[in-house]
Amino acid sequence: MSLKSDTSVTAPLLDTIGSPRDLRRLTEPELVQVAEELRREVIAVVSETGGHLGSGLGVVELTVALHTVFDTPQDTLLWDVGHQCYPHKVLTGRRERMRSLRKKDGLSGFTRRDESPYDPFGAAHSSTSVSAGLGFAAARRLSGDDGFTICVIGDGALTAGMAFEGLNNAGLSGHRLLIVVNDNNMSIAPPTGALSAHLNALVASAGNRRDGDPVIRPASLFETLGFAYEGPVDGHDLPALLALFRRLRTADPGPVVVHVRTRKGAGYAPAEAARDRYHGVNPFDVATGQQRKPVARAPSYTEVFGKTLARLAVTDPRLVAITAAMPDGTGIDHFQRQFPERSFDVGIAEQHAVAFAAGLAASGYRPFCAIYSTFLQRGYDQVVHDVALQNLPVRFAIDRAGLVGADGPTHAGAFDIGFLANLPNFTVMAAADEAELAHMVRTAADHDGGPIALRYPRGEGTGVPLPEPPLVLPLGKGRIVDIGHTAALLSFGARLGECLEARALLAALGISVTVADARFAKPLDTGLIEDLMATHRLLVTIEEGATGGFGALVLHHLAGRGLLDGRCDIRTLTLPDRFIAQASPRDMYDDAGLNARQIASLVRDALGQADQHGTARIGGYPTWTEDRPVWTHHAEHR
Amino acid sequence: MSLKSDTSVTAPLLDTIGSPRDLRRLTEPELVQVAEELRREVIAVVSETGGHLGSGLGVVELTVALHTVFDTPQDTLLWDVGHQCYPHKVLTGRRERMRSLRKKDGLSGFTRRDESPYDPFGAAHSSTSVSAGLGFAAARRLSGDDGFTICVIGDGALTAGMAFEGLNNAGLSGHRLLIVVNDNNMSIAPPTGALSAHLNALVASAGNRRDGDPVIRPASLFETLGFAYEGPVDGHDLPALLALFRRLRTADPGPVVVHVRTRKGAGYAPAEAARDRYHGVNPFDVATGQQRKPVARAPSYTEVFGKTLARLAVTDPRLVAITAAMPDGTGIDHFQRQFPERSFDVGIAEQHAVAFAAGLAASGYRPFCAIYSTFLQRGYDQVVHDVALQNLPVRFAIDRAGLVGADGPTHAGAFDIGFLANLPNFTVMAAADEAELAHMVRTAADHDGGPIALRYPRGEGTGVPLPEPPLVLPLGKGRIVDIGHTAALLSFGARLGECLEARALLAALGISVTVADARFAKPLDTGLIEDLMATHRLLVTIEEGATGGFGALVLHHLAGRGLLDGRCDIRTLTLPDRFIAQASPRDMYDDAGLNARQIASLVRDALGQADQHGTARIGGYPTWTEDRPVWTHHAEHR
Repeated sequence: MSLKSDTSVTAPLLDTIGSPRDLRRLTEPELVQVAEELRREVIAVVSETGGHLGSGLGVVELTVALHTVFDTPQDTLLWDVGHQCYPHKVLTGRRERMRSLRKKDGLSGFTRRDESPYDPFGAAHSSTSVSAGLGFAAARRLSGDDGFTICVIGDGALTAGMAFEGLNNAGLSGHRLLIVVNDNNMSIAPPTGALSAHLNALVASAGNRRDGDPVIRPASLFETLGFAYEGPVDGHDLPALLALFRRLRTADPGPVVVHVRTRKGAGYAPAEAARDRYHGVNPFDVATGQQRKPVARAPSYTEVFGKTLARLAVTDPRLVAITAAMPDGTGIDHFQRQFPERSFDVGIAEQHAVAFAAGLAASGYRPFCAIYSTFLQRGYDQVVHDVALQNLPVRFAIDRAGLVGADGPTHAGAFDIGFLANLPNFTVMAAADEAELAHMVRTAADHDGGPIALRYPRGEGTGVPLPEPPLVLPLGKGRIVDIGHTAALLSFGARLGECLEARALLAALGISVTVADARFAKPLDTGLIEDLMATHRLLVTIEEGATGGFGALVLHHLAGRGLLDGRCDIRTLTLPDRFIAQASPRDMYDDAGLNARQIASLVRDALGQADQHGTARIGGYPTWTEDRPVWTHHAEHR
Repeated sequence: MSLKSDTSVTAPLLDTIGSPRDLRRLTEPELVQVAEELRREVIAVVSETGGHLGSGLGVVELTVALHTVFDTPQDTLLWDVGHQCYPHKVLTGRRERMRSLRKKDGLSGFTRRDESPYDPFGAAHSSTSVSAGLGFAAARRLSGDDGFTICVIGDGALTAGMAFEGLNNAGLSGHRLLIVVNDNNMSIAPPTGALSAHLNALVASAGNRRDGDPVIRPASLFETLGFAYEGPVDGHDLPALLALFRRLRTADPGPVVVHVRTRKGAGYAPAEAARDRYHGVNPFDVATGQQRKPVARAPSYTEVFGKTLARLAVTDPRLVAITAAMPDGTGIDHFQRQFPERSFDVGIAEQHAVAFAAGLAASGYRPFCAIYSTFLQRGYDQVVHDVALQNLPVRFAIDRAGLVGADGPTHAGAFDIGFLANLPNFTVMAAADEAELAHMVRTAADHDGGPIALRYPRGEGTGVPLPEPPLVLPLGKGRIVDIGHTAALLSFGARLGECLEARALLAALGISVTVADARFAKPLDTGLIEDLMATHRLLVTIEEGATGGFGALVLHHLAGRGLLDGRCDIRTLTLPDRFIAQASPRDMYDDAGLNARQIASLVRDALGQADQHGTARIGGYPTWTEDRPVWTHHAEHR
């Protein structure tokens, strides 16, 4: 079966569903057929677009049941995380746009308020639905509206404290609130922790029970927290789901947890058979499940981090590794295989991850806490209060720094430079390429001081040779990569390549540019910065992060020393003050103005502006009257 | 009974306790006597120093029991939050220094690693102990050490998701880990949420049980999470505590929760009778419990916020208020009394508070989320992901911005300007005085855009008249307070008064200074900033926050416009890059270099430096060769 024939699979009943309203006039057998067509449709779409598949397949029947029984969008339906919402999008008027998923100007891979009234709340980070749902429910009460609020949350997402906070507040609230626990016994990785065991115990005790038997299952956590508890129910038995939700809608039992057991990847054999249940996939062949593997030109940063750490750990027993439910995504899997007893997957629990690391560090260990930039936001207070304040040697390995592509703005690593480098006691590094990353892992492992963060982007490296062995970098020292004499580009992180390209573009115009790699946002290499200022007419900082980070610290330093005296002009290139919509990383950086061409334009314009201001002219360069014609040529050859 | 006689109460047995080792050779009746002497000692100390009292009194017997039975400090004892640790400090070699509590160069009011080996982990924010303790326990396992780890955590602290994350990870860990739930049925305010009801149910069912009866209590949350459960036990029955801990120490049951029922303020009648159980007190008369009330010269910022919000809510039904367990501390109590149904105390659960607010905002309400700066760090990801990304109209009322005095660096509101103002969609204001605060509350209530934060300091206002009615401020517009012509001071927040004093100091030297109040860090008043630059030789920004905040945004803007051209020099005054130790706020700001004298010195020095650099000289001013003699006189009269 070719991809082509699959993606045009007939779906006679699904074709009649323009909105959930259309579900409500169907018979139960018809709804079962809709579910099957919906499943095929989702498989067909994701086989073309790539994206999150396993979670969506696990909730096909659930999605149909909820939209059939409840009066969405008047009743509020919240999908926790949102990566399971593709079936929901198909049923809520977005079927025609599904092949634009996760692409520039296309549908988001998550729920988004501006996409549809059926998405009342945006998601992407896990475990927010109970709290947000309680907000909707409280608003209903204040407004005298008697609708339902339904939160669908996975067993993995329940391990985050935020979900517990929501449950603790919701249980006694009396609201018309349904918490649907979508228990597929998975985070992205296999589940960890006592809650998972508890959910399994609830399922096991139900399995031993026949109808009519007295309830002898263990009291559920949810009842402890004041909820009624229903289930477990088979999440792929659509008639059972319909019956249960219809009963609950009528009975109005107050806050209730419905425990739904599902299979991630359900109904698609290759997904069900895969270790990750096709959590996130590249485009694939529907018949075989074979994913298109893009040819890797270089190892990923993630892999270089993981392997370097595992190698260093052979000789340093103090090194331990922590991941919050993402061993593969963070590269901790390499370490985990080699040192299972020194690896800790704490579940989706970044707050715990950081404070747990602090406890290990206070005991003499050197924990590498590997958390994506965007998810480290969840542990920010612990970073400040438990790590920075106590000056403990926790190492933060911050993957997905900068813009990340298809996952969009919710997953951008935009703020970590600022939220870490402005903390006392911290050392903050960013890797310009994968060789630099290896050095930085070694540096963090060796460092005898307090906390260190090292940040690096999503995706593959630049293809530079990896150092054997990696070196311990001198703290707070950058490096000059290419010497020029008119403008200096000081890069912090992986825009270094773009700076070098910008240098080439400018060289073609007779503008001589120095390119330097700061390596450290903290401590700043103040000597390098001052030298660059003293020997160039313009200094431009470049970073893959928001304002208030590296460039800001450079400016603060220069202001403090009285060096913003106009003898060298200065610009700070950061992410702009808006969230950058999903696209390819390259397009997103274009949107952000951080690609070579834009860096070069900025240099050209700044030098021109400095001239107008009458600043002393050191190097010679041409001026242009046309609007940047010279860059077009170079851009075409990229 | 005078304070004097009380504070010199005889304590013959306590006098023999130099360290917990000395407890371990005493008989049980002697330990009971030690506990009583310890309670008197703590009361005597806090009657002089002020500080946290109720929590410490509640754990006197628990403290004695734990240090007697366990081999501290080899066994690790962690006090969650730490405000209950005064008895612990007395017993662990710090008795002589107790009267320096919370003072400059004195003992911290919380646990601190650098104070004693008996403080293995610093605390002050709640709910960290389980995660940190699990780190210690995991380190023990890796190191082959078989000691115990004991975490004492209150029922209030358990409502924070972070504690749940820790429990979920600890329950099945197999570690020698004791979680002592110190259940006094209180947060600082009365408890909220289902967990509190559950703990009460556990106590109630135990109360109905006689020895020998089968266990018919409800299964505890803790057993659900894999712990053994012991209790409830009377936390003031020292023999019972000793027996229980001795049994557990021998039995080695793996992770166990010991449910200890205590009374906050126990053994001191005035505390037990008070609504807040003397959670935090001023110095007081031991005989009567009467606290010394410092004479208030002006209403507190907290009160002005709370009352203004309550007043605006009379005519705007969209306004609702959220506090995370601190209705009194945040001023939400005023609102709560008037609009109980529109007030939400969510417990210690800042993540939930923010996302819950986002849900309300998405439903058309305008929630004021009133959280101290330092605690808002706990909800940072929710601020980014749930509020800023969705551009929802949540209002953040950020009390305790800047340095806070006796609570020290753990409670400083140092980072919020940076972690909020660098987020897209945010508006960030800071109040220069209580009249400004009233305007800003009104402005935030009226604003039809996205998220707004308003920050203001701890303590009382400046005594300015309060506006009747408060005004809606023009967004992104500052104000000039006093006009001069040589240097401009641009203050963001409550250092405005110090800037005006600095202006007077400089005027006496013939240096003419403009003072402006930025009001907004975002949107920046770029017109004001550029005008000040164009008309002065020096611009100095001043803020009560770390680098990467207001000053950084000013610099970024000027760099972007090419205005760092030396025609006007610039300095950015922020909190320094280190944590500022506890002292009076005034002393802390002195340490930080943000008082009038220091601002004036900086202006003088910067103008002198600019001269040396040959910058164009606009205004005339004297130069000095002596080291700032002129300031001495003024300082003496402050």
